[in-house]
Amino acid sequence: MLKPLGDRIVIELIEAEEKTLSGIVLPDSAKEKPQEGKVIAAGTGRVLENGQRVDLEVKEGDRIIFSKYAGTEVKYEGNEYLILRETDVLAIIG
Amino acid sequence: MLKPLGDRIVIELIEAEEKTLSGIVLPDSAKEKPQEGKVIAAGTGRVLENGQRVDLEVKEGDRIIFSKYAGTEVKYEGNEYLILRETDVLAIIG
Amino acid sequence: MLKPLGDRIVIELIEAEEKTLSGIVLPDSAKEKPQEGKVIAAGTGRVLENGQRVDLEVKEGDRIIFSKYAGTEVKYEGNEYLILRETDVLAIIG
Amino acid sequence: MLKPLGDRIVIELIEAEEKTLSGIVLPDSAKEKPQEGKVIAAGTGRVLENGQRVDLEVKEGDRIIFSKYAGTEVKYEGNEYLILRETDVLAIIG
Amino acid sequence: MLKPLGDRIVIELIEAEEKTLSGIVLPDSAKEKPQEGKVIAAGTGRVLENGQRVDLEVKEGDRIIFSKYAGTEVKYEGNEYLILRETDVLAIIG
Amino acid sequence: MLKPLGDRIVIELIEAEEKTLSGIVLPDSAKEKPQEGKVIAAGTGRVLENGQRVDLEVKEGDRIIFSKYAGTEVKYEGNEYLILRETDVLAIIG
Amino acid sequence: MLKPLGDRIVIELIEAEEKTLSGIVLPDSAKEKPQEGKVIAAGTGRVLENGQRVDLEVKEGDRIIFSKYAGTEVKYEGNEYLILRETDVLAIIG
Repeated sequence: MLKPLGDRIVIELIEAEEKTLSGIVLPDSAKEKPQEGKVIAAGTGRVLENGQRVDLEVKEGDRIIFSKYAGTEVKYEGNEYLILRETDVLAIIG
Repeated sequence: MLKPLGDRIVIELIEAEEKTLSGIVLPDSAKEKPQEGKVIAAGTGRVLENGQRVDLEVKEGDRIIFSKYAGTEVKYEGNEYLILRETDVLAIIG
Repeated sequence: MLKPLGDRIVIELIEAEEKTLSGIVLPDSAKEKPQEGKVIAAGTGRVLENGQRVDLEVKEGDRIIFSKYAGTEVKYEGNEYLILRETDVLAIIG
Repeated sequence: MLKPLGDRIVIELIEAEEKTLSGIVLPDSAKEKPQEGKVIAAGTGRVLENGQRVDLEVKEGDRIIFSKYAGTEVKYEGNEYLILRETDVLAIIG
Repeated sequence: MLKPLGDRIVIELIEAEEKTLSGIVLPDSAKEKPQEGKVIAAGTGRVLENGQRVDLEVKEGDRIIFSKYAGTEVKYEGNEYLILRETDVLAIIG
Repeated sequence: MLKPLGDRIVIELIEAEEKTLSGIVLPDSAKEKPQEGKVIAAGTGRVLENGQRVDLEVKEGDRIIFSKYAGTEVKYEGNEYLILRETDVLAIIG
Repeated sequence: MLKPLGDRIVIELIEAEEKTLSGIVLPDSAKEKPQEGKVIAAGTGRVLENGQRVDLEVKEGDRIIFSKYAGTEVKYEGNEYLILRETDVLAIIG
């Protein structure tokens, strides 16, 4: 199991074809093409300068749209994941 | 439904022709051409270093002017949207 | 009506000729030529990291000098405006 | 009258010849040639993140040395002024 | 023994071949190839602006994935180590 | 008299020859050659975001080593001075 | 005696040959080659935005590894020293 740190999350990519299912289609023209994924694990949150820990808004299982060039690709136990910071998440698809 | 995170908002673009209705016309000469849109959804606000969450000033349904080069385009359930940060919003038209 | 957000202001430009009236003449030689304008609307102010909102110093109706390359031009109901941040305002003329 | 905002000040330039009077001579060799001026008006001070306003150290009437490339030139009622931030002031001549 | 300072950690690199054991395989295509390692020593944590010390999330013995270009290589008593900051750690493998 | 502001200090340069006296010799090879000087005047200190003023560590009369490319040269009443920020001071020679 | 300010430290370099003694060998391949040294003097610590002074972790007499390109070289009373900030120290060799 991959346990992301702090404000990071681990997501599984949802390829373009599946997108018609949840309705997200990325316009080719878009300068920056956001992508869709499913949250597999979320970090413990961000620590503020007053010592308080702020939980992440995204939860395990959420479908999200994120900025395409964000994150780092990793293969783990045969599956491909992307590790992002929450600030790269544009919206939750709900 | 698209649920933006933190200080982000989802807007629907209002094309140039419609603009005469609300009065906003973008001068071609302008170095940076602001655009007009309607707020579809607003994030939960910004978290300050003292842990306090500050609500966004823009609300669902507001007509706004924003900086042209800001945000990320997304198509969702056949509609085109732009996801911005509130700091890219110049003014509310009201 | 244009309602600027946060620390932004909406101003009406005062062209060069009118300037002799209020006394401001912009030296051509100046690397950065400040400009003069009248404040049409002022934002709600800046939110500090302790959650306090600090009002803007400029008020509606103030004549100001600002840095030439600042802000974004907008036409609204046939009039031309510039939307600036207060930090681009050099001084109030009064 | 020019009323500078926040941590800005308005100064009148003191040309090189006059400098022998107050003793400041700018070495040509100096990579960055500071300049001398007289403070005409001082802003209301800087607002800290805890909401406290810190007064400026320079006062109206002070003779100062400042970094040459700082500030913006303005002509007002026939006189030439420079509008600086206090952080560009190197020292008060007293 | 190497005692890292503040938010730094000392890790032992786990070479590619061993990776099949713990399941992490780095896709060649990935723009930024994360790497795997074992934590040998962890620093005392990060000091916040309110003076509080925040412990590191990673502990001695943890297997981690980190960004490839992060850290500084060191040889100590015949062994090769990498000294990183915790913010370069993407996830703990557990 | 030159009165530096905030975290600035005014120093008198101590030329290379004199250095053998206090023992500081600048190695030509050094990428960045620190220099030696005597503090003539020190500013009122740095104001923190909580409003507290922190006195400078250097005092009038201290001999210091500082980074060569720091500060601004000024001639005042026939003498040459350098105006630096305290953060450019590497050490006090005691 | 050299008294470093704030978060700075003065170290004596330990040349490559001696390194086999304490076990640190710098791999030539390393993009950034850390170096080893002995702490001669440590500054008074870092002042946080809440006014609190945080002592340095390194003490006089510690053997340390630091980033090669950090610091400024100084010769004092015939000896060569390097003046660094504590953040350039990778680890204490204990």
